[in-house]
Amino acid sequence: MIRIEAIAIGTELLTTARVDTNSIWIAQELASLGLAFHRKTAVGDDREAMKTLFREALDRSDLIICTGGLGPTFDDFTKELWAEVLGVELEEDAAVRATLVAFFESRGRTPSPTNFKQVLIPVGAEPLANPIGTAPGVWWESPDGFPGKRIVLMPGVPREMKRMFAEQVAPRLAPLAGKPVKTLRMLVSGVPESVVDERTKALREKHGALDWTILASLMQVELIARSSDGTALNAARKDFEAELGQDLARTGVGAIEEVVLDLLAARGETLALAESMTGGLIAARLAAVAGASRVLKGGAVVYSAGAKAELAGLDSAFIAQHGTVSEAVTRALAERIRAKLGATWGLAVTGNAGPGEDPAGPAPVGTTFIALAGPEGTRCEHPVQAGDRADMQLRAVMYGLDLLRREALKGL
Amino acid sequence: MIRIEAIAIGTELLTTARVDTNSIWIAQELASLGLAFHRKTAVGDDREAMKTLFREALDRSDLIICTGGLGPTFDDFTKELWAEVLGVELEEDAAVRATLVAFFESRGRTPSPTNFKQVLIPVGAEPLANPIGTAPGVWWESPDGFPGKRIVLMPGVPREMKRMFAEQVAPRLAPLAGKPVKTLRMLVSGVPESVVDERTKALREKHGALDWTILASLMQVELIARSSDGTALNAARKDFEAELGQDLARTGVGAIEEVVLDLLAARGETLALAESMTGGLIAARLAAVAGASRVLKGGAVVYSAGAKAELAGLDSAFIAQHGTVSEAVTRALAERIRAKLGATWGLAVTGNAGPGEDPAGPAPVGTTFIALAGPEGTRCEHPVQAGDRADMQLRAVMYGLDLLRREALKGL
Repeated sequence: MIRIEAIAIGTELLTTARVDTNSIWIAQELASLGLAFHRKTAVGDDREAMKTLFREALDRSDLIICTGGLGPTFDDFTKELWAEVLGVELEEDAAVRATLVAFFESRGRTPSPTNFKQVLIPVGAEPLANPIGTAPGVWWESPDGFPGKRIVLMPGVPREMKRMFAEQVAPRLAPLAGKPVKTLRMLVSGVPESVVDERTKALREKHGALDWTILASLMQVELIARSSDGTALNAARKDFEAELGQDLARTGVGAIEEVVLDLLAARGETLALAESMTGGLIAARLAAVAGASRVLKGGAVVYSAGAKAELAGLDSAFIAQHGTVSEAVTRALAERIRAKLGATWGLAVTGNAGPGEDPAGPAPVGTTFIALAGPEGTRCEHPVQAGDRADMQLRAVMYGLDLLRREALKGL
Repeated sequence: MIRIEAIAIGTELLTTARVDTNSIWIAQELASLGLAFHRKTAVGDDREAMKTLFREALDRSDLIICTGGLGPTFDDFTKELWAEVLGVELEEDAAVRATLVAFFESRGRTPSPTNFKQVLIPVGAEPLANPIGTAPGVWWESPDGFPGKRIVLMPGVPREMKRMFAEQVAPRLAPLAGKPVKTLRMLVSGVPESVVDERTKALREKHGALDWTILASLMQVELIARSSDGTALNAARKDFEAELGQDLARTGVGAIEEVVLDLLAARGETLALAESMTGGLIAARLAAVAGASRVLKGGAVVYSAGAKAELAGLDSAFIAQHGTVSEAVTRALAERIRAKLGATWGLAVTGNAGPGEDPAGPAPVGTTFIALAGPEGTRCEHPVQAGDRADMQLRAVMYGLDLLRREALKGL
């Protein structure tokens, strides 16, 4: 099995809260090829430190996947230093230059002189096109004096790196692939991690030959099993589906918002939102999914009493009587927005996510109401919330989407 | 300045989406002591790989901070391997044994035989108590044959590590501390990275004694300078403020949405949104900031023609005449939502973020209109967009917020 290492370049990875998400994503892709990193290193934009690391990596690894340091600015010198370590020159690549100029033209701009630094490619290396950015990547196989070594340089910008990897790097890695490892991913929604852990313990032991990982986040648990044995994964899937029932939101890839959109689209149903506490977060998550417009008719971000009246058509006296954060107002919001946009479902969230108690505030921090109006009537939940502002908003989003998922399933 | 490196141990860091948040947290703590990592490495639970890495680290670093691999299970052998690399034995520590027994007793449990592996400490090293877990840490100063080297081993569980670091490691590092490093962070908005690079090149050279980092993302560039010399940072700040003018959105911490909220709040102004292409993303970013309700009155997520009519009060015939993605409709959305919610500013976005061209679609993929209605009239921008769906949505968000920032500044 070839030895693969990840190198992430950027002082910000050592000194700020910037996370190297690239190597995490690449690790998943490698897994699907039956390959794995044996080491990951982050190093700053420091010429000596980088060269030392590159030399070490050449010693111990067959394939080195570097991200970052390919930009146009003064602290981008990954290509230059690799060329130095391998003892070759950088040369302008005509095709890369043409692509760069075209990239800028398509955006009505002209490249600056520093951009042209990016068209330099080490002699003997192959450029990797970057269709959505200015920094080309590099694929370098068996450089002079280093037979059998492979070096891949990709931009640090995640979306550019991902596309370059998928389209140009993965196909080049395919011949090196080990026995492909398949992944079974199961998304459990609306059940606490400790409950999922207990309910699935026996089954994980039964399927102990699989490689298990449990990742928990707010209102969600992902159960991930890996194996090269597809039959074993299938057997596990069947057992977990039987055990978890409707708590299992999805088998396979996809977040809860995709689960909800697919479910409603399959039923020809639509959704309207009225968000106060979550301020548009539910709408934004749904709208981020391609094709969301099949289901999402629209929504009102009712962040003030005025907006509740003007956008959702609530009576000001009614709001004043019950309070902006109340079951009555939340139910009314869900029902009114559903009627107004002619949607199958109306989902509304009100609450106070803080921070800081305000005696004049609409409700104590943590108060949350989530109402869902549908063909059979309206349901309102009032979960107890704690944590910081972002936590409470996110938990309300997940709660609302899960409530919608479970209610929509009832109609099946 | 002493050379410090981070080593994170655990196969899950190489194969799953598990992020090594420990080293990110420790980096912030080191910064407050005027110290910094020069390298961070993640390695799996693999004896040979770990020993190789430990030996390399001893060569190149003065202080090595290891997290993980101190648990009771079969794949925890960090202490054992460090002892092997440094050529010493492990010995049971009576005080650590007593603490472990007490820890279990206080929870009504009895340690298992594997737990007693954790009371072994390398000869010559000092145990670090773990008041909230079973794995003690280790502080090892100038091991035999390695004068001046310091090795710190801490558990991988973040809350145990953080408490151990704060209470026992930080005080031991204080005598090694450098001069505290201050940070000057400048957020440039609405200017491409390469342009910022060129416009600030001479100034960065003038202030070359500072340690510079540039972080670029869509429509934004962060310039970060670090130094222990506050006067030098101040001088740089003044020069950059003079050079960048209104392109400099903020000096200090804070994202563009905070800049906009602070700016409008200071002027007693309010905002209403009508989002089609961005589907609530602008609202969600603003609502994520504490105190957003001072400024954000609300918004309409007008994801369908019906929502444009029902929520923003546009005439259906007018929409049909101009098309849902058009300058006329976007201007009208901005003006109507502003009037409807009685806000100082009305910001509207329409467009087609794709993916996939649809001949029956409202406009070619990439078409974007951003309209801002304010006290002096309405302005509409029509930026050329490319990239994937998430890119186009995010760029439209940043474009809209920056347009609002610049127009609001005009009134100053």
